[in-house]
Amino acid sequence: MRRKVYVEGSRPELRVPFAEIELTGDNPPVRLYDTSGPGSDPEVGLPPLRGPWIAARGDVAPVAGGGTPLAGERPTQLAYARAGIVTDEMEFVAIREGVPASLVRDEIAAGRAVIPVNVNHPESEPMIIGAAFLVKVNANIGTSAVTSSVAEEVEKLTWATRWGADTVMDLSTGKRIHETREAIIRNSAVPIGTVPIYQALEKVDGDPVKLSWEIFRDTVIEQAEQGVDYMTVHAGVLLPYIPLAVDRVTGIVSRGGSIMAAWCLAHHRENFLYENFAELCEILARYDVTFSLGDGLRPGSIADANDAAQFAELRTLGELTHVAWDHGVQVMIEGPGHVPMHKIKENVDLQQELCDGAPFYTLGPLTTDIAPAYDHITSAIGAAMIGMFGTAMLCYVTPKEHLGLPDRDDVKAGVIAYKIAAHAADLAKGHPGAQDWDNALSKARFEFRWEDQFNLALDPETARAYHDATLPAAPAKTAHFCSMCGPKFCSMKITQELKEYAARGMRDKSDEFVNSGGRVYLPVTAADAQSL
Amino acid sequence: MRRKVYVEGSRPELRVPFAEIELTGDNPPVRLYDTSGPGSDPEVGLPPLRGPWIAARGDVAPVAGGGTPLAGERPTQLAYARAGIVTDEMEFVAIREGVPASLVRDEIAAGRAVIPVNVNHPESEPMIIGAAFLVKVNANIGTSAVTSSVAEEVEKLTWATRWGADTVMDLSTGKRIHETREAIIRNSAVPIGTVPIYQALEKVDGDPVKLSWEIFRDTVIEQAEQGVDYMTVHAGVLLPYIPLAVDRVTGIVSRGGSIMAAWCLAHHRENFLYENFAELCEILARYDVTFSLGDGLRPGSIADANDAAQFAELRTLGELTHVAWDHGVQVMIEGPGHVPMHKIKENVDLQQELCDGAPFYTLGPLTTDIAPAYDHITSAIGAAMIGMFGTAMLCYVTPKEHLGLPDRDDVKAGVIAYKIAAHAADLAKGHPGAQDWDNALSKARFEFRWEDQFNLALDPETARAYHDATLPAAPAKTAHFCSMCGPKFCSMKITQELKEYAARGMRDKSDEFVNSGGRVYLPVTAADAQSL
Repeated sequence: MRRKVYVEGSRPELRVPFAEIELTGDNPPVRLYDTSGPGSDPEVGLPPLRGPWIAARGDVAPVAGGGTPLAGERPTQLAYARAGIVTDEMEFVAIREGVPASLVRDEIAAGRAVIPVNVNHPESEPMIIGAAFLVKVNANIGTSAVTSSVAEEVEKLTWATRWGADTVMDLSTGKRIHETREAIIRNSAVPIGTVPIYQALEKVDGDPVKLSWEIFRDTVIEQAEQGVDYMTVHAGVLLPYIPLAVDRVTGIVSRGGSIMAAWCLAHHRENFLYENFAELCEILARYDVTFSLGDGLRPGSIADANDAAQFAELRTLGELTHVAWDHGVQVMIEGPGHVPMHKIKENVDLQQELCDGAPFYTLGPLTTDIAPAYDHITSAIGAAMIGMFGTAMLCYVTPKEHLGLPDRDDVKAGVIAYKIAAHAADLAKGHPGAQDWDNALSKARFEFRWEDQFNLALDPETARAYHDATLPAAPAKTAHFCSMCGPKFCSMKITQELKEYAARGMRDKSDEFVNSGGRVYLPVTAADAQSL
Repeated sequence: MRRKVYVEGSRPELRVPFAEIELTGDNPPVRLYDTSGPGSDPEVGLPPLRGPWIAARGDVAPVAGGGTPLAGERPTQLAYARAGIVTDEMEFVAIREGVPASLVRDEIAAGRAVIPVNVNHPESEPMIIGAAFLVKVNANIGTSAVTSSVAEEVEKLTWATRWGADTVMDLSTGKRIHETREAIIRNSAVPIGTVPIYQALEKVDGDPVKLSWEIFRDTVIEQAEQGVDYMTVHAGVLLPYIPLAVDRVTGIVSRGGSIMAAWCLAHHRENFLYENFAELCEILARYDVTFSLGDGLRPGSIADANDAAQFAELRTLGELTHVAWDHGVQVMIEGPGHVPMHKIKENVDLQQELCDGAPFYTLGPLTTDIAPAYDHITSAIGAAMIGMFGTAMLCYVTPKEHLGLPDRDDVKAGVIAYKIAAHAADLAKGHPGAQDWDNALSKARFEFRWEDQFNLALDPETARAYHDATLPAAPAKTAHFCSMCGPKFCSMKITQELKEYAARGMRDKSDEFVNSGGRVYLPVTAADAQSL
């Protein structure tokens, strides 16, 4: 069975959640990273876990459920790490990742990792994004102008984190952006990201030409006050880069990128996000909002991958990374998009070089354009690879990508596909302990401990249901074979007999083996099996 | 719309099928490789397309629907290629792949590619498996002792090839193996592979100890007469290698491998497949059955990947490859299994080195063990990568892997996931023309040609259904936005406007742009959208 356990840190209030799976026999329990949060009443919201931690640092004036930044303070994890301090948040993630707290502090201080923790989102359980740590997964949710409701989005948040989403982005557009976001943040134990330009655009009736720095700035402050942990800002879409995207097969596919491009062209002025970037940094620093520097010129098709427009913007993001760091602000960098497999590594290498190791946060990438309705798979391939090469967080893609708004089933399909990609990347990176999970499951499989196998599965319910579809009755749960091969052909069963046989010495025992009937499989007949 | 077209070769009887997708406007139609076959009445079977080709060569005595090999002849594609002859089968696949016939012939002559075409399976449409050609996908079907029927398996065959399976393996066990196989071969336009040891084992009541070379040989002849195009033979599971697998987490997971290991240990004798390999070659040569040298010691878990047992067997497969070639028999080599991403390339490199470029045919590999019920995804990641590194054919894995026998939906899910992996690999290898499909679909997407996008999709039905789930009404099919972003936020729409704008000259037009209202998106309101 799976249950939630807590590991206590240096003091009782610092308790780090894990999912513990008890196994049968004398097999030790397996502990897994757990993103599901403490569970909440949506009407009340979650308890402010980090409230006392934030208050104790004294750089934020406590208010109900969070704090108001004091003038001139930059209460960011980056600032603390540079000062050599291990914050409560750092200790929490160190326990969560099974690494020394000093590694967490040092990676943050170097800018190679971020802990997105707005002082006004005390409900969150700290998590870290960086190449030295477990690869993370983000799930996008949010209302659109055409469809979906606030309650549905909170439900999707809970659902996404149940299946393992490490952060959630609220990409709501339409009329109820503020209300939707409030409901999401107050109920979220994971960091919440947004793209503030979407709300800014609503404020000017959807006309990008009417946007201004002032409207954007006020929107950022509104969202920072509310507790948004990281914000996508398309400050790298510069006026001179826009012509580079004009002859693409799919032009500009980033919503934020196209909005900023429209503004730049209409005014024939440089991107106001770029021009006011230092002021923006000061705002984010006060709340410890993390930058997610958006790739507004990311490729939207295989044909457009790794082109001049994409890499021109990436160079600018490298420049802006240093500006943000100079202001004590945590930064990660967004990446593509649609990229064929042989061009994936170049993306990570160039990003790491230009952005001095700031965490990379990529959408997919999709490795082919031909499979709408299956882009969770086309992109899980690219996501696993880019994770192996060093991407720190993978933004999921659901089966509805390009086609419609994801529903509950799509959210689950996307998260599961991306947890697979992230874990495959952890294995390939040789992350300490990552393979323990695989080993425990494979051992259970080899020993026909079906219930253990189901309980260890990324999705226990579906694994159990698929098994039951062919061999539904209870005895099959203890059967030493499965429906794929039936009792006579079970290679695992044969090997188990071989193992016992080999243990007794191979040569001398061959006669005995034959004399005993030479049966290396269970003498269950097909008729027996069918009667199960 | 999608329709079947034929491209005529050097004579009217040689007609190569393609799926042609007509697009709207002045966009040229797109032609795709087509595996669906001519369609058949299951009671009658398919017409013997290759009957006259085989007869005309004069080395097989014609009988109804095929031929009986003449004594001493080796009517294999390998023998013809070595003699410098371009057979009808080679011409067919050259047209199918869009490559020169001389390349096909030369790759076969060098052993780097195979065309699995039993002289007694004249119903098949020739296809080629080799690293220089499109990456292929195999789908496994077959009855088991516990479940499924003959009619179901023929239905799965048709279903699998409809979605793009290039070959199908009949892995039936249980009582009706011969009958099931007959129905499958007579209705199959793709090569059929088998694992003859399964049927041989049925003949000895499922007791591996009672197996013998004679029983196996007679089974191979029976299947070769019937028309099986390629056969998995576990001749590399040698007695000294078996102890290498004993301490694994999951031992021996190949059914054939465990059966042969049981036989070797019980008799304490060397594998009879290895000892009689030359005679086996002579049988396969007479029918042009292709070897698929099985990897009986493939890893069944991440922990066991690339270990001594696996690579010891691979070395023996390299040796046997040369023996087969000496007898004029076509050969491919089977590969793993479960392999973490960073260990995948070593598999291909070593196989290509040890087997002198013989085509590699891999199961997955699964890149993690933690996701039973999603192993089509865990393995599509590995399959795409191993395809990029040079694997010629990918054996699919369905969502039911490790849990149950795949049903119709699972077969489709497995084939689709693997067609994605294969195409992603084709792109990464820079296969000529592969990207045309992606480009056509992305251009349709960018231009909001929804029907073209659906028709070009790998699975048009599901893509259309997902779109309709959010925006069901007919006008949405011509809408210049989709439900993800709604009309105001559509980046593709904005970019299209930018393109038109840029085409007129950017600087001079900015005033005009603003004066005209500066709207770079369609002036459709959210209310309009909801009324669609």
